[in-house]
Amino acid sequence: MRSFPEVGCSSQVSGSATQAAFRWPVRVYYEDTDAGGIVYYANYLKFFERARTEWLRALGFEQDELRRRHGLVFAVRRAAIEYRRPVHFNDCLTVTAAVIRCGRAGLDFYQEAWRDDDGHCCATGEVGVACVRLDGMRPARIPDELMEKIAR
Amino acid sequence: MRSFPEVGCSSQVSGSATQAAFRWPVRVYYEDTDAGGIVYYANYLKFFERARTEWLRALGFEQDELRRRHGLVFAVRRAAIEYRRPVHFNDCLTVTAAVIRCGRAGLDFYQEAWRDDDGHCCATGEVGVACVRLDGMRPARIPDELMEKIAR
Amino acid sequence: MRSFPEVGCSSQVSGSATQAAFRWPVRVYYEDTDAGGIVYYANYLKFFERARTEWLRALGFEQDELRRRHGLVFAVRRAAIEYRRPVHFNDCLTVTAAVIRCGRAGLDFYQEAWRDDDGHCCATGEVGVACVRLDGMRPARIPDELMEKIAR
Amino acid sequence: MRSFPEVGCSSQVSGSATQAAFRWPVRVYYEDTDAGGIVYYANYLKFFERARTEWLRALGFEQDELRRRHGLVFAVRRAAIEYRRPVHFNDCLTVTAAVIRCGRAGLDFYQEAWRDDDGHCCATGEVGVACVRLDGMRPARIPDELMEKIAR
Repeated sequence: MRSFPEVGCSSQVSGSATQAAFRWPVRVYYEDTDAGGIVYYANYLKFFERARTEWLRALGFEQDELRRRHGLVFAVRRAAIEYRRPVHFNDCLTVTAAVIRCGRAGLDFYQEAWRDDDGHCCATGEVGVACVRLDGMRPARIPDELMEKIAR
Repeated sequence: MRSFPEVGCSSQVSGSATQAAFRWPVRVYYEDTDAGGIVYYANYLKFFERARTEWLRALGFEQDELRRRHGLVFAVRRAAIEYRRPVHFNDCLTVTAAVIRCGRAGLDFYQEAWRDDDGHCCATGEVGVACVRLDGMRPARIPDELMEKIAR
Repeated sequence: MRSFPEVGCSSQVSGSATQAAFRWPVRVYYEDTDAGGIVYYANYLKFFERARTEWLRALGFEQDELRRRHGLVFAVRRAAIEYRRPVHFNDCLTVTAAVIRCGRAGLDFYQEAWRDDDGHCCATGEVGVACVRLDGMRPARIPDELMEKIAR
Repeated sequence: MRSFPEVGCSSQVSGSATQAAFRWPVRVYYEDTDAGGIVYYANYLKFFERARTEWLRALGFEQDELRRRHGLVFAVRRAAIEYRRPVHFNDCLTVTAAVIRCGRAGLDFYQEAWRDDDGHCCATGEVGVACVRLDGMRPARIPDELMEKIAR
C-alpha cells in the first residue's frame, strides 16, 4: 500500500504558483452542490477542467480544432485533489492552472480553487494529461506550435 | 513541487485488495460519458462514492441516520485517481471499496473500477474521508459501533 | 405565449400506466442532490433515461449495437417534467417508462418516479425521442425488429 | 393521456421574448457533453438555472440571502424543454430568462438557448418555480421588494 499523495499548498508553493498561474472565475450554482450544503467533491474536477480549457484558449488553441486538424485530444491520466475548506452555493471562486511539468506527450498541472470572498484556498490539485491520437488513443507528440507557447 | 502521487494497481496489491474489497456494480449511461466518447474523468468519483455508500450500508449503517442520530457526516478530504483504460457507454463496471487505513476520525479507502466484459482494471484511486460534526464541520470520532464493524 | 404543459399523474392514468410500465430501481446518492437537501431538478432526467435505457435492454436491444450495426441513435426532442414531492438523499425510487406513442421515427414515453418508502409519486414526465442517423442526425426509421417488440 | 406539451419558439414569440429577456453567456465544456458528441439533454436545465440565478442577482437579490433572511427558497415545480438543434463541445451559448407569469407564490419563466456562432435557437423551455418556506417546503409569498423589481 502506498502512502496517500500529498498535494501541497504551502505558502511558498502557492505563492509562486499562483503568480504565474492562469486564473479563471467560477460561480457556484445549485448544480454544483450536494445535500451536505457544499460543492460535491467530484465537481472540483469540472472547475479545474474549465480553467485548463480556458488556459489553452488563452494560448490561442481550441480543443475542437486540435481534434479536427490534428486528430489529437488531451486525456486525463491522473488527478489528485485535496479538499481544504468547504465551498458553498453562490460562492465565487478563482481557479488557477499552472503547468508544472511538460513532456513531449503530456502535461502536469497544479491547480487551486480560491474563494474570492475571504481569500481562502479551498482546494488544491494536480492533474496529468496525455496528448493522444483520437483513433486508437495512442500517445502522440504535442504539436510544436503549442509546445512553444507553453515554454514561454 | 511534490512529485505526482502514484496510486498503484500492482497485481499483488489489487489481488489482495480486491479479495477483501466490497464490490458494487455500476452501469455506464449517457449521463456518465462526454464528447470524447468515454466516461468523463470526474464521474469516476461518483462511482467510487456509490461503492463507499453501499459498503457502509452493507455494514448496517445509513448515512442519513448517522446524520440524524449522531449529527455526523463523512467529508472527503482528499482523492487521487489514476485513469488506466477508457470506459465507454453501456460498459458494466465492478467498483471496489476497501478500507486501507482507519483512524479515530477518518478512513482511507483504496478503490478500483473493473470492466466486467474484459476483466480490465480501468481506474484505481484512494479517497480519504473524515468524520465531522454537521454543526461546524469539526472532526469527530467515528461511532464505536461503526468502528467495531470496520475492524472485523 | 403558450400555457404551461400539464403532465398528469391522475390516479387513473398512473394506475393504468404503471401496470404496463417498465420499472427500474434508482438509489439516490449525494451526487444527485443539491444544497436544498433534495434531488437537483435536472437529475430526474438522468433517472428517466436510465429507465428508458434499461427498458430497451429488456427488449433485447443495446444502444451501442444499434449505433454500430445500424448507425442509429435515439435523440431526445422534448421533455416535460412535473415535480410533485421532494426526493432526498438515500431515498429508493422506482422509475417507470411506458411508450405512449410510437411512430415510424420516434417514441413518446410517459415516466414516473415513485418513492419506495411511502409509495408517493414524486415526479412525472413525458419524453419524446427521435430515431436519427448518426451521420447528419437526420430522422430515420426505427428498425423493424425493434418496432415489433414495442408493438407487443 | 395528455398531448405532448408544445413549447414554442415562433419567430414572433422569441423575437419579443428575447428583446426583453435577461441574457447570460454559457460556454460548453466537456462536462456538459455526452458520448453522442453533444450537450446531454439534462444539462440544458443547468444552463437555464444559471440564467435564472443571474437574472435574480441582476435584480439585486441573492438566493443565499433570501434563504438566510427570509427562510425562503425557490423550488422548481415543472419544466418543459424542446431540443431544436444539437449543441457541441466548445460552443458559446446565450441563455435567456424572461418571466412570463408572476403570481404571489411563484414565477413562470420562458427560456431559450442561442448559439452565438450561427445565431440558431438550439433549445427553448418553460420553467415554473414556487417560493417556499425552507421549514416544511410550504408555499410562501414572494417578498414585496422582489415583486416590485420583477413588475418593472
